[in-house]
Amino acid sequence: MADLSTIDEKLLEQIADLHGMPRGAFNIRKDGQLVERHSSANITIETFTDKQGIEITIAPGTKNETVHIPVIMTKAGMTDVVYNDFHIGEDADVTVIAGCGIHSAGDEKTEHDGIHSFWLGKNARMRYVEKHYGEGEGTGERVLNPTTNIYMAEGSHCEMESAQLRGVTSTIRDTNAELEAGAKLVLTEKLLTHGSQTATSNMTVRLKGEDSSVQVISRSVAQDSSVQIFNPLVIGEAACRGHVQCDAIIMGEAKVKAIPGIEAASEDAQLIHEAAIGKIAGDQIVKLMTLGLTEEEAEAEILDDFLS
Amino acid sequence: MADLSTIDEKLLEQIADLHGMPRGAFNIRKDGQLVERHSSANITIETFTDKQGIEITIAPGTKNETVHIPVIMTKAGMTDVVYNDFHIGEDADVTVIAGCGIHSAGDEKTEHDGIHSFWLGKNARMRYVEKHYGEGEGTGERVLNPTTNIYMAEGSHCEMESAQLRGVTSTIRDTNAELEAGAKLVLTEKLLTHGSQTATSNMTVRLKGEDSSVQVISRSVAQDSSVQIFNPLVIGEAACRGHVQCDAIIMGEAKVKAIPGIEAASEDAQLIHEAAIGKIAGDQIVKLMTLGLTEEEAEAEILDDFLS
Repeated sequence: MADLSTIDEKLLEQIADLHGMPRGAFNIRKDGQLVERHSSANITIETFTDKQGIEITIAPGTKNETVHIPVIMTKAGMTDVVYNDFHIGEDADVTVIAGCGIHSAGDEKTEHDGIHSFWLGKNARMRYVEKHYGEGEGTGERVLNPTTNIYMAEGSHCEMESAQLRGVTSTIRDTNAELEAGAKLVLTEKLLTHGSQTATSNMTVRLKGEDSSVQVISRSVAQDSSVQIFNPLVIGEAACRGHVQCDAIIMGEAKVKAIPGIEAASEDAQLIHEAAIGKIAGDQIVKLMTLGLTEEEAEAEILDDFLS
Repeated sequence: MADLSTIDEKLLEQIADLHGMPRGAFNIRKDGQLVERHSSANITIETFTDKQGIEITIAPGTKNETVHIPVIMTKAGMTDVVYNDFHIGEDADVTVIAGCGIHSAGDEKTEHDGIHSFWLGKNARMRYVEKHYGEGEGTGERVLNPTTNIYMAEGSHCEMESAQLRGVTSTIRDTNAELEAGAKLVLTEKLLTHGSQTATSNMTVRLKGEDSSVQVISRSVAQDSSVQIFNPLVIGEAACRGHVQCDAIIMGEAKVKAIPGIEAASEDAQLIHEAAIGKIAGDQIVKLMTLGLTEEEAEAEILDDFLS
């Protein structure tokens, strides 16, 4: 991998579990430029001509294939806005591995705004995994503002797992989904903030079709003096099911606000949400300490478990 | 009761379970005017000189006394804005029965905006009961917009039960509370809307002191094409406990939106909320029908039970 440094490779491992170039279709972007791209027989990746970004087209019926589209940034002072459009054909069954890692060495802000849009065809299935991570000795802000739009045709199925690991100064996450009849969406979001970081997550899921369903699982840990805000909203417009669950662990001087909304516009919508904010239960720490862990180790163990 | 008609007496029975004049301290207001008032040895009721309304002062240590302050309105086209301030002395233990009933015979709007403020002294206890109700052959809107402010000193205790019965065209309910150390608040709100009625309930509870706690219980039934919006927010600023629970039954073309927020600004705040919107479970209706009830009777029975 001629174009990738050791820092680049470490970032790719953190955000996409990559060791070397991935198998199958992929597009690796670094500092706003293409590093390497590979299309496969069923998955084509093309560059937009009118804006930054790529169009990924997955042929109907494609099974068990994977697309990797990691982004890494190593230049301070750069803002990269990129559009990724995914067209997933009917009956396809694919995994998409995204993610963004920033290594910041300067004192200027580095920002990546990824606007991902997914059109899932009838009965298509997608698993999407995304990790966000920041590191580096630089004092510049590391900002990640992802926008995710998901349009799900009848009978389609989507599992989306997003995680913000350490090192992201600020993030505003916007997720929007629309579900037709029988579509099923599972959104899992895990956020860790520390220092004076801030994280806002807005989600709007519109259950439009009969028997559509969504499950939103949000787990977060707010440490030090970081601030988190959650605004997930599920709107039921048909006979549908929605479940929103937000759990946050608060530590130190951190602040967490959770405002999960549910809105029923159909007599046959069944919507539930739950949210809880609290600190780590003392008895959990004591239990692990009796097994020989220090208090810090016990705390780390509990947080790992909570976010994994 | 020279000044009260049969309609008036029926309204007072609906909203305050009154048959004739109450015992103890009371203030009965009709169409923006005082009907009758009675202070007791420990409870004085005085008229504000600078605005509409009354100031109720309850002496420290007053035990097991009751204050009735019902309001009835029977004139279409009238908007009555009234301020009721309650000063509840240290260690007092009292019950306040409020409520507003509108009998509307005309085609103009009748509106009552009651701004109630409560200052609970150290270790004071109050139970507050309020019912809202509208009736009458008139086509004019019946509007009730209550604002309730609750300031709770150390160790005070408040149980507040608000119910909106039938017949209220629209309501905007604003409830604000601040709790010092050891104060405990239980807010129960039950709303029934039907026809094309609208109801909005905003609540902000600020847990300022150590060991303060709040429980918010919201139960509502939205029938026909009515619309309900719930915005309860609990803010934990100390080692405190907060629990918000919203349950709504949706029927017909009704819409319900619940956005209960929790906000922790202390590592030692424990905040939980839960919300559920759905229709009456079919098996509950079937069960009651096997006991001999018609479907309508079964439904009525379940709703009564849910709101009682």
